[in-house]
Amino acid sequence: MSVLALAGGVGGAKLANGLAAILPLGTLTIAVNTGDDFEHLGLLICPDLDSVTYALADMNNVELGWGVADESWAFMDAIARLGGETWFRLGDRDLATHILRRQLMQQGDLSAATDEIGRRLGIAQRIVPMSDDPVRSIVSTDRGDLPFQDYFVRYQCAPRFESIRFDGVEKARPSAGFLAALGDPALEAIILCPSNPLLSIAPILAVPGVREHIVNRNVPCIALSPFIAGQAVKGPAAKIMTELGIATTPAAVAAHYGELIDGLVIDTADVGALSDKRPALFATDILMRDPADQRRLASEVLDFARALSATAR
Amino acid sequence: MSVLALAGGVGGAKLANGLAAILPLGTLTIAVNTGDDFEHLGLLICPDLDSVTYALADMNNVELGWGVADESWAFMDAIARLGGETWFRLGDRDLATHILRRQLMQQGDLSAATDEIGRRLGIAQRIVPMSDDPVRSIVSTDRGDLPFQDYFVRYQCAPRFESIRFDGVEKARPSAGFLAALGDPALEAIILCPSNPLLSIAPILAVPGVREHIVNRNVPCIALSPFIAGQAVKGPAAKIMTELGIATTPAAVAAHYGELIDGLVIDTADVGALSDKRPALFATDILMRDPADQRRLASEVLDFARALSATAR
Repeated sequence: MSVLALAGGVGGAKLANGLAAILPLGTLTIAVNTGDDFEHLGLLICPDLDSVTYALADMNNVELGWGVADESWAFMDAIARLGGETWFRLGDRDLATHILRRQLMQQGDLSAATDEIGRRLGIAQRIVPMSDDPVRSIVSTDRGDLPFQDYFVRYQCAPRFESIRFDGVEKARPSAGFLAALGDPALEAIILCPSNPLLSIAPILAVPGVREHIVNRNVPCIALSPFIAGQAVKGPAAKIMTELGIATTPAAVAAHYGELIDGLVIDTADVGALSDKRPALFATDILMRDPADQRRLASEVLDFARALSATAR
Repeated sequence: MSVLALAGGVGGAKLANGLAAILPLGTLTIAVNTGDDFEHLGLLICPDLDSVTYALADMNNVELGWGVADESWAFMDAIARLGGETWFRLGDRDLATHILRRQLMQQGDLSAATDEIGRRLGIAQRIVPMSDDPVRSIVSTDRGDLPFQDYFVRYQCAPRFESIRFDGVEKARPSAGFLAALGDPALEAIILCPSNPLLSIAPILAVPGVREHIVNRNVPCIALSPFIAGQAVKGPAAKIMTELGIATTPAAVAAHYGELIDGLVIDTADVGALSDKRPALFATDILMRDPADQRRLASEVLDFARALSATAR
């Protein structure tokens, strides 16, 4: 049996880490958003791939919420002295990943580089980019169109979010590893991790063929709400949803995913927020404070999926 | 009036720094060996250019003798964890130079990148690569042919040195800045810094046209001996000269440079070592312990050049 998880940044990485820990080695594929990727200081930076990789390698920086643990910043000091760009901070340790990725990509694609980095860090589950073709999330705001990291990091999500598009996505193909997981006869469940639906999960679903694959699934697809009592656990989801006039509620998440999902995992704080028959609901404590929470929630999500699988679809 | 200095690594950088300090701003060009350059972790590393740049920016690491002061090594730790190459150590601060150079070279050549890095570090004299075309020093040894940094750093000069060649040099052109300095009507002197004659100065002289330019000079050309009482101040020069059956003496240095030089600066410890009429000799304390020594020696070298210039050539 195998499981496919779709993940974006930090929240997705946490659940992915829980799933990775409890599923037999080699049975989990995590397909990760690459719409946030960008070129910086001549390096390809893949924030979501790295968040998932660092979480599974148990080297993620818990205090910062991004990057590598025990990070230092001598490189940034030197770049500042040299008059280089400093709005996007690259730690000394984090930098090694970007340098190695660039080196590996001189002989292979992003999938191969991601695979090799995971292997070297001792990660036994499979992390794949949603696509090996470049896709770039562009946010339309009241200050014009901004590449995602400019909107997110440089301007700290301050501009008013109007819409998002994924440049290049119409020509992108799902990565081979993603396609293999989608078509795996042993597939047991598809999990949409609690990443931002508009920023992190939407680009993955926008890769041609992915949405159709999931719509035509014969296994349960479960989403996790990224909201607890109207608040995003982390990140700008709540602000953006509000600016778009979408409620930060499980009902809005359910409406957003529509026919894509069979089940939605919500926080106990939101019980009673939905009354429709579909999707099926499972309420629990969805806040992941530590790896124990990650494993517990992952286990509950898989049990929920199996329960849905046992009933008629 | 202007001065042209040819320099390699640490010894050359020290005298170049002394010359830079005492000459009026904008009147010194330092043409630097690029035969030691190599690609590492996907970056272009230019050890000699960086040694000169860091010395003139007063940010060189005096303890190590290479790299940047106050260096840290978190990046190397992370590269080691990722199974990357660690035999050539890149400090966190040093790395910023290589990253910026790569970025600058996406839009220009090595000369332009070197110029821009120098400008950003507040260097007012001109540092130019000997050529913008790639030249790679290859050392033939009893363990086979080795790229220079493999011989020098990876194997710590342990293999027996048999000969050196400069791959690509026959097609290389002197950089525009180097040519401009060589042809400057205001040129007052050419200084061959106390860098290794075979490893550091020879590749510069091997760039087509350079030797001819210097042979046909109408200003004094002064070399500094890299030896004191039969010992190299730093680096493998003495070992290599011995392996080649060349004495580590001012006489051997004079014979090596031949008609290229008018004067040779030697240590007072070596007075009496030469008795020929040419080159003219100037003996002083040539060990540069600190910036004051660098300025004092630079000043003596320039006085020596001017004295030679005043006499008939």
